[in-house]
Amino acid sequence: MAVYTDIPDDELALHLERYNIGELHAIKGIAEGVENSNFLITTDNGTYILTLYEKRVDPADLPFFLGLMKHLSSKGITCPEPIEMRSGESLAQLAGRPAAIVSFLDGISLRRPSSANCRQAGEVLAKMHVAARDFDIRRENALGLAGWRPLFENSRKGADGVLAGLTELVETEIGYLEANWPAKLPAGVIHADMFPDNVLFLKNQLSGVIDFYFACNDLLALDIAICLNAWCFEPDWSFNVTKAGALLAGYQSVRALTQEEYDALPLLCRGSALRFLLTRLYDWLNVPPNALVTPKDPSEYIAKLRFHQGVKSPGEYGLHQLPLESK
Amino acid sequence: MAVYTDIPDDELALHLERYNIGELHAIKGIAEGVENSNFLITTDNGTYILTLYEKRVDPADLPFFLGLMKHLSSKGITCPEPIEMRSGESLAQLAGRPAAIVSFLDGISLRRPSSANCRQAGEVLAKMHVAARDFDIRRENALGLAGWRPLFENSRKGADGVLAGLTELVETEIGYLEANWPAKLPAGVIHADMFPDNVLFLKNQLSGVIDFYFACNDLLALDIAICLNAWCFEPDWSFNVTKAGALLAGYQSVRALTQEEYDALPLLCRGSALRFLLTRLYDWLNVPPNALVTPKDPSEYIAKLRFHQGVKSPGEYGLHQLPLESK
Repeated sequence: MAVYTDIPDDELALHLERYNIGELHAIKGIAEGVENSNFLITTDNGTYILTLYEKRVDPADLPFFLGLMKHLSSKGITCPEPIEMRSGESLAQLAGRPAAIVSFLDGISLRRPSSANCRQAGEVLAKMHVAARDFDIRRENALGLAGWRPLFENSRKGADGVLAGLTELVETEIGYLEANWPAKLPAGVIHADMFPDNVLFLKNQLSGVIDFYFACNDLLALDIAICLNAWCFEPDWSFNVTKAGALLAGYQSVRALTQEEYDALPLLCRGSALRFLLTRLYDWLNVPPNALVTPKDPSEYIAKLRFHQGVKSPGEYGLHQLPLESK
Repeated sequence: MAVYTDIPDDELALHLERYNIGELHAIKGIAEGVENSNFLITTDNGTYILTLYEKRVDPADLPFFLGLMKHLSSKGITCPEPIEMRSGESLAQLAGRPAAIVSFLDGISLRRPSSANCRQAGEVLAKMHVAARDFDIRRENALGLAGWRPLFENSRKGADGVLAGLTELVETEIGYLEANWPAKLPAGVIHADMFPDNVLFLKNQLSGVIDFYFACNDLLALDIAICLNAWCFEPDWSFNVTKAGALLAGYQSVRALTQEEYDALPLLCRGSALRFLLTRLYDWLNVPPNALVTPKDPSEYIAKLRFHQGVKSPGEYGLHQLPLESK
């Protein structure tokens, strides 16, 4: 949750004149998004989200994020659509920060997604992968394989205080993943953070995907692994193979996995678990004194990593049919 | 800003079935209100605020707060209107807490209200005082004269660390106010927290008053003094007599002050400044380690108190005409 920046009244009024969305009726800071300041605004024309990008976001990445949302919207993916100013640009400056206005999506993120919801999540993930094939801006994954060692260096000192033996666990895992990473799998633009918080449902139908601020270029199947970790564990951290099977089946109904992707799933799930373990560990050990955000316990992802380390075959993820031919 | 309580999906859906407001389209935790958890919800029927009352609110006070908002709404004051459940009740239980749904008001709170805005604020304050005359629940002012000594006891230890001599200043002031308090002035229901944050404007016209969770029975003119402190000082803490005159004129256009109220204004302004000085001092010295809220600097109200201590006559508040006869 976050509202880091206050917008002076007069600046806001002037800012909205750059758009063709009518006059402001209301503005509420909303408790959403760890990285940025978000405001729900209503105007003569409807409801929008105004985002001010705070210092954790590199302004150089904004054309990628905004361009991707516009591209996906144009291909029929329901995601926040950047609103253009009268100038035709979507990226502005407000209160000393980069800022954008995007469409507001109706829908509720589910805390306890069902198997049917997991299937819908898998479908939309594949649709995004397909829709982004001809998106022409690239963004490296700063939290991909190459980023894990430097990320862990910043948490090394406190790691064993969180869990005895954690340093050893992480270092061995990074070494294993570096040695075995399936770098030749199909790659493209991935969402990279499609947790249930970032997927909206209306009357139990998936109604939209939000928060593209970790999107980047990487292995498509890594995005599936991120979703398996985020959607298919129960609150007690046990793995729900029915949900995993549903998510994979939903994905494959749109884009079939290659044999190599299928075989790599356990390893990609380990990599994905490690990625979230590392960022949560870092946040856990580096809470600023006036933090507005309670950090998430890294233990959840330690447990998930260990689960995937014990997986002997991709079939354990509930996808028992042979993979179909890649589209 | 605050969202303290998470609502489980299934509880929320069941809860909304108690109301006749249609199905949920969206829910966003909003960064507003220090005391409670607030959610903006949209349903088939429109937009509402769902509030979960957290532990700083005494559940025994809720019938007063909700009843007052309903009473004022019925008299034409634009304020959040509690939505009744099918049962006819407005107060419910959700996620283990007392909860209510109120109408959402369009409008924006101004950070830099003009003199014209101050006049409108004065008008609506008087309209509320008149409209609440026949409201029949009572609530003592826990932050009134009798509350200041015990409140200061909880901050005494740290007071001189905030400002050298603050203990002496506060104790002398409490003694003076106790000895001179004009207890016989016209009394009734006061808002008691009508800061610019709690007043909404649309196209520069006052469109609503919110946050009645400090409302109580006390001297009507104390509410005016609270507004003079909240609306009529500039960001550099200098007093803007034009704004004060406008606020008082707006008030008197609806309800004329009595001679006794007029004469008591400097003293009531001192009392009001002391009340906010004391609560801010307490919050400043008692920030919980995981606070979501940055406390406000008590120095602002030390400066305001000193200003009013130097006022020699009520005319210094910009109201130069003789008070009209009381309505």
